[in-house]
Amino acid sequence: MTLRPLTTALLDRLGPDLSDGTLRETAPAYLAEPRGMWQGRAGAVLAPRDTAEVARIVRFAAAERVGIVPWGGGTGLVGGQVMPDGAAPIVLSLERMRAIRRVWPDENVLVAEAGAILSDVQDAAREAGRLFPLSLASEGSARIGGLLSTNAGGVNVLRWGNARDLCLGIEAVMPDGAVLHGLRRLRKDNTGYDIRNLLIGAEGTLGVITAAALRLFPRPASRGVAMLVVPSPEAAIDLFHRADALGSLSAFELISGQGMRFLVEGGFDIRQPFAAIPEWAVLLEYGLTRGEDAPARLEALFEDASGAGLVSDGVLASSEAQAAALWAVREHIPLANRAVGSIASNDISLPIGEIPGFLRDCGARLAAMADIRINAFGHLGDGNLHYNLFPAPGRTKHDYADRAEALREIVNEDVAARDGSFSAEHGVGRLKVATLERYGDPARLQAMRAIKAALDPLGIMNPGAVLRAAGASD
Amino acid sequence: MTLRPLTTALLDRLGPDLSDGTLRETAPAYLAEPRGMWQGRAGAVLAPRDTAEVARIVRFAAAERVGIVPWGGGTGLVGGQVMPDGAAPIVLSLERMRAIRRVWPDENVLVAEAGAILSDVQDAAREAGRLFPLSLASEGSARIGGLLSTNAGGVNVLRWGNARDLCLGIEAVMPDGAVLHGLRRLRKDNTGYDIRNLLIGAEGTLGVITAAALRLFPRPASRGVAMLVVPSPEAAIDLFHRADALGSLSAFELISGQGMRFLVEGGFDIRQPFAAIPEWAVLLEYGLTRGEDAPARLEALFEDASGAGLVSDGVLASSEAQAAALWAVREHIPLANRAVGSIASNDISLPIGEIPGFLRDCGARLAAMADIRINAFGHLGDGNLHYNLFPAPGRTKHDYADRAEALREIVNEDVAARDGSFSAEHGVGRLKVATLERYGDPARLQAMRAIKAALDPLGIMNPGAVLRAAGASD
Repeated sequence: MTLRPLTTALLDRLGPDLSDGTLRETAPAYLAEPRGMWQGRAGAVLAPRDTAEVARIVRFAAAERVGIVPWGGGTGLVGGQVMPDGAAPIVLSLERMRAIRRVWPDENVLVAEAGAILSDVQDAAREAGRLFPLSLASEGSARIGGLLSTNAGGVNVLRWGNARDLCLGIEAVMPDGAVLHGLRRLRKDNTGYDIRNLLIGAEGTLGVITAAALRLFPRPASRGVAMLVVPSPEAAIDLFHRADALGSLSAFELISGQGMRFLVEGGFDIRQPFAAIPEWAVLLEYGLTRGEDAPARLEALFEDASGAGLVSDGVLASSEAQAAALWAVREHIPLANRAVGSIASNDISLPIGEIPGFLRDCGARLAAMADIRINAFGHLGDGNLHYNLFPAPGRTKHDYADRAEALREIVNEDVAARDGSFSAEHGVGRLKVATLERYGDPARLQAMRAIKAALDPLGIMNPGAVLRAAGASD
Repeated sequence: MTLRPLTTALLDRLGPDLSDGTLRETAPAYLAEPRGMWQGRAGAVLAPRDTAEVARIVRFAAAERVGIVPWGGGTGLVGGQVMPDGAAPIVLSLERMRAIRRVWPDENVLVAEAGAILSDVQDAAREAGRLFPLSLASEGSARIGGLLSTNAGGVNVLRWGNARDLCLGIEAVMPDGAVLHGLRRLRKDNTGYDIRNLLIGAEGTLGVITAAALRLFPRPASRGVAMLVVPSPEAAIDLFHRADALGSLSAFELISGQGMRFLVEGGFDIRQPFAAIPEWAVLLEYGLTRGEDAPARLEALFEDASGAGLVSDGVLASSEAQAAALWAVREHIPLANRAVGSIASNDISLPIGEIPGFLRDCGARLAAMADIRINAFGHLGDGNLHYNLFPAPGRTKHDYADRAEALREIVNEDVAARDGSFSAEHGVGRLKVATLERYGDPARLQAMRAIKAALDPLGIMNPGAVLRAAGASD
């Protein structure tokens, strides 16, 4: 089944069926992705006004065998939002469908359209006196449809789960143009196969999510934030278990000395929390209910952990401003990484007990191959590390071009050997299709391909993402 | 595609490939289900020793076009475990695969085989100092494979979620006999379609779950249990929101005066908590961490709710024995229901704010049709009610045989009109196939059928459960 390009002639045929404003200018942003690895193609950028128009466009694409690349905020890091080769597709932007359709504060439910920006959803929840806990660096531009389609993670997964755990129901347009009406706001609903979770994380390859019923939570009455210096990753994990046992831990992030030094190297105006940059630190946050005492909990943890030799220094935030300053350190590390320029970025997860061994052994294997710097940081409480490789001082990533793939393979192999995942929160996109083919379970891959062929027999939905497009070769 | 019966001749061919003890006597228990609505059929009952043997049996069944009915603890309430008509299938019991393969206490993960009994898994977690929170009436006989295949609920969903939320990874045999190795114990793993959640809740129609990596949690250090008298369902819901806002609420169950009167009527030796049986009460439980004070939390709630006119009386358990006595009231209500004999049982969920209107309006519609008694009880905090209809005093369910279906339809219609679900936690099985066809979203049903055909093209996996078997008519 070969797809056809969206030609001007085809677009002229579709035109009369489109609402005013649906046909957008093909601005460069629609064809780019943050890492600059690919340049996308588009026959047209269409931004439908409502679900019915999404369905019309999908039906047209199915009838004409034209590919569709769903487009949210464009923040994905694995190329799921750009199609660099093949017949020019429709880029289907959900940007005009950004309504918060309704909030039920008592039920802790909010229904948002796929184009709603995450920070707008957070705000709507806040205005209703509730919390929508999904939080990540790109929350000012990432959209709900993309966040669900990639099952986004972020800093609050520890307590509230991944995006899929925050979704009670979806509305979606299936690859044949049928609208799936599944905006359930129920906590329990055992009436057949879990199509919701199948579309969540499918990266737009099985349909287009157009709206979602999202879970809200009570807002923590107060938060307790601390950054603590730990002597080793082992100590960080021991500390994590103690911190978690106290309850209401919502974030537990690992920060490496390398990351803090990159902040200096990159010239970021970030106040370093410690007089001397430590080799390892953790940033943790409690979100506490009324009547619970944040400083008391942090002090109890600090005393317990200090007594056990797990913590040598620490800053316990005593104001919102201090808490924000500590989080600023964590939040600027990805920016510093970009300023330095990584050779290879890895978004891995491991059983948490495997992390110290991984850091030791994989670090040694990489060091034996190349003179590099490693910044390992991120969501330690979830077993999720961003494990990024950088050039030695005075060199650039281009000096490593011949070894980048081999370095990446060392990481992937070590992760696989430890029952980990080569993609914890970023997804597969186009970047990791071959990695999935290599490391994915064969029976699972076979099931995925059968499902793709069953739900999207023409292969029009985000061709080449997650699974190799039918007929394509490596 | 017509299935063939498992004849003696076919069984003789399979025999040499089976381990000692795999061929079981076809005891009546394998062909029954708790409500006595169906009598199952079996060409043979096979209880394989390990996953490889499950795969051999499934491959044989696929080659010979023989149906397979996966069998766990046999506790399902919708007939998913019995095939009353069609070609005699293999009943595939997981009872010999009951190992707890491994526990990682620090990671809060336990891997159990599908035949492990829930209470054994709870015990294994307890021995590791952890909690496996899934808890329901049949926990002494229900098995992990069945609990996952039906996405079981129970009394702790409020805090810890349904069975699917407690599962990090599965091992399964697919309908072609391929073994899916997915016993991941990761909190984040975005590497393609969510096949795990597709098999969870598929009621054995897409493959056989053979083992699962399950999530454990810290054990609450103390629990606070109370039964409170409320003037109305509205008050119960208001109370729920206040109770939930205090944090760590793990159960919130509605109990009706009708249920308490059934305990008396059925002659159950259960101590009534109140001098006079109230029309409505709730049973709630907090699971608190070290340092938190259960009596203080319950008293704060009681004072707050009393002041708001939401609670008129209450018993706050001051010992484990008292807590157990309060729970015994709740746990005996289903037994009392069976003693009375229901006309129709409904396992429904609703957006929680719809519950008072549903109880009022649906109750009135039913009363207009027949002289019945209604016992509405269950997991109010999840929006999940067991809404069961009983004969008037002095009559039996047989007196209502001509109206049972119409009464059930009134309930289903009212639930659907309020965006609820006709099956909250029990599943579809064979009982509710037609109900799913009637009330299910058409696009979702179409996707379900496409997936069934793609993964199980021969239709051998639990034929007739969830979806009508290919070629079968109503």
